[in-house]
Amino acid sequence: MIQRYVYGSMIETDTIPVKPEAGKEPLPGFTVDEKEHSFTYLLGKEDRIYGLGENVRGINKRGWIYQSWASDNPDHLEDAVSLYAAHNFLVVDGEERFGLFLDYGGKVTYDIGYTEMNRLTIRVNDFNLDVYRISGDSVLSIVHQFREMIGRSYIPPRWAFGFGQSRWGYVCEADVRQVVRKHRELGLPLDSVYLDIDYMDSYKDFTVNQERFPDLAGLASEMAGQGVHLVPIIDAAIKKEEGYPVSDEGIRKGYFCTDKDGKPFEGAVWPGISLFPDVLNPEVRKWFGSLYKVLLDMGIEGFWNDMNEPSIFYTEASLEAIRTRLMDTVGATPDVNTFFELTGIIREVFQKDEIYDSIYHHVNGKAIRHTDVHNLYGYNMTRAAAEAFETLAKDRRILLFSRSSCIGMHRFGGTWMGDNKSWWSHLALNFRMLPSLNMCGFLYTGADLGGFGSDVTEDLLMRWLELGIFTPLMRNHSALGTREQEAYRFSDLDGFRHVLRMRYVLLPYLYSEYMKAALDNKMLFRPLAFDYPEDHRAQETEDQLMLGDSLMIAPVMQQNARGRMVYLPESMKLFRFSKDGRVLETVLGPGDHYVECELSDVIFFLRPDHLIPVSFGGSCVAEVDFDHVHFLTYPAGNEACYEYYTDDGISRQAAGMRILYRMGEDGEVKALPQ
Amino acid sequence: MIQRYVYGSMIETDTIPVKPEAGKEPLPGFTVDEKEHSFTYLLGKEDRIYGLGENVRGINKRGWIYQSWASDNPDHLEDAVSLYAAHNFLVVDGEERFGLFLDYGGKVTYDIGYTEMNRLTIRVNDFNLDVYRISGDSVLSIVHQFREMIGRSYIPPRWAFGFGQSRWGYVCEADVRQVVRKHRELGLPLDSVYLDIDYMDSYKDFTVNQERFPDLAGLASEMAGQGVHLVPIIDAAIKKEEGYPVSDEGIRKGYFCTDKDGKPFEGAVWPGISLFPDVLNPEVRKWFGSLYKVLLDMGIEGFWNDMNEPSIFYTEASLEAIRTRLMDTVGATPDVNTFFELTGIIREVFQKDEIYDSIYHHVNGKAIRHTDVHNLYGYNMTRAAAEAFETLAKDRRILLFSRSSCIGMHRFGGTWMGDNKSWWSHLALNFRMLPSLNMCGFLYTGADLGGFGSDVTEDLLMRWLELGIFTPLMRNHSALGTREQEAYRFSDLDGFRHVLRMRYVLLPYLYSEYMKAALDNKMLFRPLAFDYPEDHRAQETEDQLMLGDSLMIAPVMQQNARGRMVYLPESMKLFRFSKDGRVLETVLGPGDHYVECELSDVIFFLRPDHLIPVSFGGSCVAEVDFDHVHFLTYPAGNEACYEYYTDDGISRQAAGMRILYRMGEDGEVKALPQ
Repeated sequence: MIQRYVYGSMIETDTIPVKPEAGKEPLPGFTVDEKEHSFTYLLGKEDRIYGLGENVRGINKRGWIYQSWASDNPDHLEDAVSLYAAHNFLVVDGEERFGLFLDYGGKVTYDIGYTEMNRLTIRVNDFNLDVYRISGDSVLSIVHQFREMIGRSYIPPRWAFGFGQSRWGYVCEADVRQVVRKHRELGLPLDSVYLDIDYMDSYKDFTVNQERFPDLAGLASEMAGQGVHLVPIIDAAIKKEEGYPVSDEGIRKGYFCTDKDGKPFEGAVWPGISLFPDVLNPEVRKWFGSLYKVLLDMGIEGFWNDMNEPSIFYTEASLEAIRTRLMDTVGATPDVNTFFELTGIIREVFQKDEIYDSIYHHVNGKAIRHTDVHNLYGYNMTRAAAEAFETLAKDRRILLFSRSSCIGMHRFGGTWMGDNKSWWSHLALNFRMLPSLNMCGFLYTGADLGGFGSDVTEDLLMRWLELGIFTPLMRNHSALGTREQEAYRFSDLDGFRHVLRMRYVLLPYLYSEYMKAALDNKMLFRPLAFDYPEDHRAQETEDQLMLGDSLMIAPVMQQNARGRMVYLPESMKLFRFSKDGRVLETVLGPGDHYVECELSDVIFFLRPDHLIPVSFGGSCVAEVDFDHVHFLTYPAGNEACYEYYTDDGISRQAAGMRILYRMGEDGEVKALPQ
Repeated sequence: MIQRYVYGSMIETDTIPVKPEAGKEPLPGFTVDEKEHSFTYLLGKEDRIYGLGENVRGINKRGWIYQSWASDNPDHLEDAVSLYAAHNFLVVDGEERFGLFLDYGGKVTYDIGYTEMNRLTIRVNDFNLDVYRISGDSVLSIVHQFREMIGRSYIPPRWAFGFGQSRWGYVCEADVRQVVRKHRELGLPLDSVYLDIDYMDSYKDFTVNQERFPDLAGLASEMAGQGVHLVPIIDAAIKKEEGYPVSDEGIRKGYFCTDKDGKPFEGAVWPGISLFPDVLNPEVRKWFGSLYKVLLDMGIEGFWNDMNEPSIFYTEASLEAIRTRLMDTVGATPDVNTFFELTGIIREVFQKDEIYDSIYHHVNGKAIRHTDVHNLYGYNMTRAAAEAFETLAKDRRILLFSRSSCIGMHRFGGTWMGDNKSWWSHLALNFRMLPSLNMCGFLYTGADLGGFGSDVTEDLLMRWLELGIFTPLMRNHSALGTREQEAYRFSDLDGFRHVLRMRYVLLPYLYSEYMKAALDNKMLFRPLAFDYPEDHRAQETEDQLMLGDSLMIAPVMQQNARGRMVYLPESMKLFRFSKDGRVLETVLGPGDHYVECELSDVIFFLRPDHLIPVSFGGSCVAEVDFDHVHFLTYPAGNEACYEYYTDDGISRQAAGMRILYRMGEDGEVKALPQ
């Protein structure tokens, strides 16, 4: 059951397509302090808190402060409070069980047992918001109800479930061709190559650098011939430049966010001084979305929207303020204070909240302070593109995912987990974020495999890919200046080939489960606690996840480990695929098991009386035979069925078939007549 | 067996008291490249690399680059290469088994399977060093031989095994009194309060701020009456100030490091422009050590030496260089490049290696570039104090530990693990560093419990103390500006009281084991791999440690966990002490076990046929009865004995008794006649 509670008068977010009637009674269980803008709930000792989408720390979020405030923060340290997204949905599970969603575009702080261990305090910037309380028999039922309310999750084309190779550093056609050639020559499967900001002319959106990419349409077509899609980046900000049509037209039509005087707001990002499309305005969204056409017309079928928190390095005013302060400080007697002041001044300026205070949106003739809707920006940029694609690509799905997001955007695109690092702890963080994001409607998601910043090691990349083969977005991405981390840079090519190929072997199951999760508003990745709610051990397990109906995954996420402990809440069958072709299948009873897993081994667990459809693989998604699948099975005495979803992988309607496969007593798996 | 290999002509480090004859044959197993200054060894697939003392990442160091280069680096991130210390001892265990020690004061880089997974490359700055290769039947034998060669580890007074409370932020006598009063009133045991830099007058070593600490001697005496010792900080650098006797005398006598022209080198630290005692020179060491007398005379019995990498914020020249660059940049057209240049300029200056290049030491009339002996600085500062104490405190031990160190310093003082953060990952790092430091001779060690930087949570502090009760140095320390983290700031006082008291219950065992480890050149904390070398599971276990002869520890180091998996290489008895007085004793068989451990529970494991002596506790070490111990036992069919070391806890000679206790068939434990 969902109850809506209205406080003040919210700025519309368009997150909830059909809003339930608002109740009159107070929000049960919470002390609401209108003066403090806070909601407080006393936590039971055993209460666990799930949700909040993209964030640091555990699956159980208890014991820290989090802030919904979209931030360009590449340092995903344990004490970070905000990453790129703002996902205001959580579930309390324990003495009571309910979900809570805050429909609100401004800053929200969640003190989840930080100040006091037994207190949850949610504080909003101003008291104009809708709160939804969702009750249900189980966490899964609560999440399901919530997901039904917020609408169906984004569905990408099937090829977007293939492996993608990316690096901020592919600067010309030759770089792209080399990546593809290397993969094809070495038998490393590949479906896409990503283009980071260097493909543009001076970082201007919807332009192509003619020196380095003289014929992008030609390149796209050439790559398509090899089963590879090019996926260019689109940044949020538009370079301010006379003669650049996007800048000119936007200024002429008043399509950019303004300052308080109504003049276009100017902030610096990669292209230098830039303008920010006022994507909260439907007319602007329509315009901005239409701009993607130039790339679609070149044969591009996928995009990643970046820097849309929006990230702003500085404004002329903020830079001038530093300059003045620096002048003063540099001129002063040099001492320790000067030194720390100098270092402090610089640190202060980046992504200053004050900059956001000076930006205005204009929706339906009303000016809205950016600060009050900050978290909606990436959502609406992505929505602009998605809505345009409905016309520009009427009959087919376009790949689209975004760095910043809030709930609502899940209908329009996926999200990646932002600029992580090549750290083992970020591999584990990637893992733990998956169910939290699924709860909030984000199914098409994944992290930069191998890590974006910092230098990867061969074993970290291998282990990370062993998780990545299970995540819908599977992309190896790294930053300029870091160690090159394409699989072919390392020694164990057989190992990498094996791991990447396993993705394609598993694709029938992964795609089928993704589609059912999207169409039926279910979670793809679930903490064990959600599937085995009475199992206390399952409740604390944060390094294993249920994946779809049949699988449990438990990748190795520790350096130098050749195996790991796995907790089985029920009997399961372990599959281990080794690079030399050996496949181990062993039934393990409920309880704790040490499972060996050499560096390039792929392991997963099949639930009893479950099946998964698999293929013989391929070097790209187009080569995978989704129509003639075979099955990995674990018959355990009861009827074992699998509902297999399949479609053409590209039609927008996603009107596929669901075929019921049943395992007979003879061990044969057969499709039941429809 | 130890073999010494001489390359070029090393600058003496005084690390090895008696050097074995140098061999003529080449270093076996290594390719030595004199031009590249490198030693390369091909790693077997299963080889594990242990050692390197204070460093980030795992107990098995394979899969990263490390650098011996003492650095003031509070960000102990996964990709850090250097922390505060430089410990050039490692053991290769696998296809071959040997230890390697580089007797060298300059920069060393260890590429341990980073560039190539199967290659260990050690690179030194210049090719003047001695290398020691130690072979043996077991890792423990190799470590033992190495420890015998480098000499007996530092032994602190017994009271230094009590709990210490610290914070950068206790600025006056009232602050100290409050900490002590709170602990005593609430029944929280306490043995020491640490004084950070604010007790000094303008951060001048060996001075006391007369306004805030008008009578330090009186305060020390008052605190002593309550069983509490004051432990002031001593920083490496001496404020340059006319009229400050230390500065004046040092300049007059030429006791400071110089620049290339022989003038005292000036660099800025907390006191502003400062001078750096040339502690590599024996005459300067004698002088610097003698300065501690003023505090000893006030009744001070312990010190922590800080900022002795040495940390240098800037020099006038480096600050001027920034100022000039800033002026230029600030004056330039403001654009994205300017912005990144501004942020970059500031980041560059802190702890610049170039600063070290401009410093000179003078030993035996010879000028030595600081860069060539950088890692020896903290060692020699601490040695200066320790050597002086031999005269100034002839009959008693003085507590002394240091932030920076290299091997050699282990004879003169302990070390803490530097400025960590209130992160769960740093609790685990604290744990993993223990055996690595023990290998290098550092027995008196521990981390800032609860974390120095960042904000702690109540549960993190509790769990961290549950590890801290086992570490010789047990100190809660936090930084200015972070959340206050004395135990009494939080809600579960019963829990904190229980955990702290457990330290005192365990003290007879912990002190006895510490002393035997020091006197017999053994490790106190050992990876399971060292005690169970044939056990493959033990080889990968990095979250459990052997502690002394009888115990295995396995603290909970994950937030929101109410227990953890524990691997037992043999049958052990689990002890669990709960805050309500319940004690669980259960024998568990070899293999994997899930062990419950509520937030304030203390757990440990006793080996079969082993005993540990315990006490009834006390509110400070002086109240613990070391003469009438009782025993926790796990009789398992064979003779169970314990060799108990005890002494007066203060005499320098450490000429204690070793009493053999044996458990009889009746279950009684009795001392055998001597």
